[in-house]
Parts: sequence; structure tokens; C-alpha cells
Amino acid sequence: MRIIDISLTVDSALPVWPGDPAIVIERFLDIDRGDVVNASRIGCSLHTGSHVDAPLHHLQRGEGVEALSLSTMIGSVVVADFEGAEAIGARELEALGLGPGVERLLCRTRNSRLWRESPGAFRENFVAVTPDGARWIVEHGIRLVGVDYLSVERFAADPPDTHRTLLRAGVVILEGLDLGEAAPGEYTLVCLPWKVRGADGAPARAVLIEGDVA
Amino acid sequence: MRIIDISLTVDSALPVWPGDPAIVIERFLDIDRGDVVNASRIGCSLHTGSHVDAPLHHLQRGEGVEALSLSTMIGSVVVADFEGAEAIGARELEALGLGPGVERLLCRTRNSRLWRESPGAFRENFVAVTPDGARWIVEHGIRLVGVDYLSVERFAADPPDTHRTLLRAGVVILEGLDLGEAAPGEYTLVCLPWKVRGADGAPARAVLIEGDVA
Repeated sequence: MRIIDISLTVDSALPVWPGDPAIVIERFLDIDRGDVVNASRIGCSLHTGSHVDAPLHHLQRGEGVEALSLSTMIGSVVVADFEGAEAIGARELEALGLGPGVERLLCRTRNSRLWRESPGAFRENFVAVTPDGARWIVEHGIRLVGVDYLSVERFAADPPDTHRTLLRAGVVILEGLDLGEAAPGEYTLVCLPWKVRGADGAPARAVLIEGDVA
Repeated sequence: MRIIDISLTVDSALPVWPGDPAIVIERFLDIDRGDVVNASRIGCSLHTGSHVDAPLHHLQRGEGVEALSLSTMIGSVVVADFEGAEAIGARELEALGLGPGVERLLCRTRNSRLWRESPGAFRENFVAVTPDGARWIVEHGIRLVGVDYLSVERFAADPPDTHRTLLRAGVVILEGLDLGEAAPGEYTLVCLPWKVRGADGAPARAVLIEGDVA
């Protein structure tokens, strides 16, 4: 079993979506100050780093993150190469030539290089899924889509049709992945978001597994 | 594949360790107030709900949670029945008659009932692992131990020898599980903590899997 961690490491320098609260991590107990243990608190958006969006993020009567199906977030996945793409539309998705039965798709783009090249800066010009790409995903039975920047949708899209199309169809959106170490191909995905009641999203740890689990 | 979620659902009513900051979850964007999306922030201890302790929690030069081995947190596990036990010591562990090769052990006790019977109240008299139980765990090659209340160690233990023994030996401590739906037996455990840089602990989503993954 080989495990590839595709999650971002969260610290206060990680870029956040413009307008979101800053990531604050601070010790409230510290052995160096005479406490018995070190213990820290965190304050941040639930859409920090690698995270999932729940339907409630865009749909006022949508379900919260604790209702997302674990069986959708655990299972076989294709990491697809969009290295040269400026956007992920129906045309680019069709060109992958995916076989039948693909239910989980992670889109590896030039975004993954940003985590190494400019880790602290938010970039507006990231590669994202277009509205017609979202419709293609829904029509082809994909139940989970993952992207390697902080949104599945281009910056400042108004209306946010990519999100709405995916979330209305019950597709799990996994954002903020680092796919730099994940060569295109097939894996087992395990994506486990923090279980926060009634939340519009939650940080997630996501890994790819090669070989048999256990 | 059957998935049993053994993670607590986090909300502001979940009990926190005495002295820890309260769990605060609030929307900073709300569709009902005219925003395009719903988005929430959270503020809480990194030892909230189901979580792992990193060595840094008790050892000033210990590693942070991002350094915990994923291969320790993914793999075969035994859920052991301590229903009648007042504490988990070497004697109780020996009585399990575990076969060789058990590397992950989850201790199901009467604590799991507390999540249903008195979900909002912190209880000081939870069942925990004694210092000689911790030594037994280390000596028997167990690399991950999970418990069904907010600490592996009895309340107000001073010095906290159970934690220190486990963390010095590199045993991953998984706390705050709800094992009420997990019958004693063998499973595949997947425990994925949030990847927070240099943190003394982190919330984790943990599941048990029956059958083949994927």
C-alpha cells in the first residue's frame, strides 16, 4: 500500500479566499509557560485549504456537510491531466476518453504548481471548471470532482453556475488539493471531511492509495 | 463495502475539555442576508470532538500532527469490548487475548453511551487507559490506540503518564470516538486528521470499513 497525501498543510500563511477570515492558530496552553501540555486553538473559514463544499454552500435549503455520503468520498478515482488547459470545459473533459463507470475525478492542472511557486499569495487566474464542464460531469454520472485550487469555479463567477449545477445534482466538490505528487492514473481515493453539523463546507484530509488497503 | 462512521458531529453543544475555548460556528456570508453563498467560520480547540494528539501535545520537542504517519492511521484494527471496565489497565488488556500482529486498537467502553445519554455535559468520571495499560500497549507493539471519550487518560491525571508513555513511544492517540455503532471485532480503520502545520493535535474523521475498499 502506497499513500499519497493530496491535502494542503494549513498554517496562517496559506492563501484564503478574498474576504474570508484569516487563519489564526495560537497556543492557549504552553509547556514553556509552565502549563502541563501544549494546546492550540484555530479560527478560520470552513472553506480553508483542502475542503469540501456542501450543497448548503450555494443552496439555501441544501444539506450540510455531515450529510455527504462517505461512500461517495471513498473509492476508485481517476486523476486526469489538464496540464495545458486554461479551463476545464466539456471539450477538455470529453477529450480525456474516460471509460464507463468513472465516478470520481480529480483534475490536475497547472494550479498545483502554485502551492510550490507562490504558496502565500491568492491567485485569481486559476484554472477552473466551466459551467458546461459542470453539466458534462453531471451528465456522465460523476459523483465527486476534485480540483487543485481553492474553487472549482473561476474567480468572481456571477452567477456561480458551476457550483450550482454540481451541488444541485449532488456532486461532492473537493477543492484545494495539491496534486503535484499525483501522477495521472487510477487510485483509491479516501476523502474524509471534518464532521461539522449543518455546515456549508468543511476542511478535509484526502489521500490517494495505490495497492490494497490494509 | 460497509462504512461505519465513528466520528462525533461537531457543534457548539458538544462538550469541550474544561478550560478549553468554546466551539464557535457562525456564518459570515448568508444567502438570506443577500450574499451569493453561505459560508461559515469556526473557532475551537484543535482537540475538539474526535481528534488525534500529536507528540507535541505533551512533549515540548515532539512532532506536530502533520508528521503523524498515515500508514499508522490506515489499516486493520480491532475494536475491543471494555463494557464492564472501570479502567483500561494491563490486566484488562491482557484479558482480551489479542492475537499477534494487532497494531491498532479501539477501546469501546460505557463512555460511548454518554454521547447519547448526556451529549452536552462534560463528564469527569469517564473510563480511561491507566499508566500500566499504556505501557502494555507500547510493549505489545500497538501503534494506534483509540478511545471513546475526550481523553485517553483519566481526568486531571498529574503527571499525565498515560499520554507521555504513549506519545514518547510514537503511538498515535485517537480520542473522542463514538463506538456505539461499532460491534467488537475486526475492521479496516481510516483515520484522517486535519493537516495543520506544527499543531499539537487536530480534529479527525475516522471510519471503520467492512469488506474491500473501493
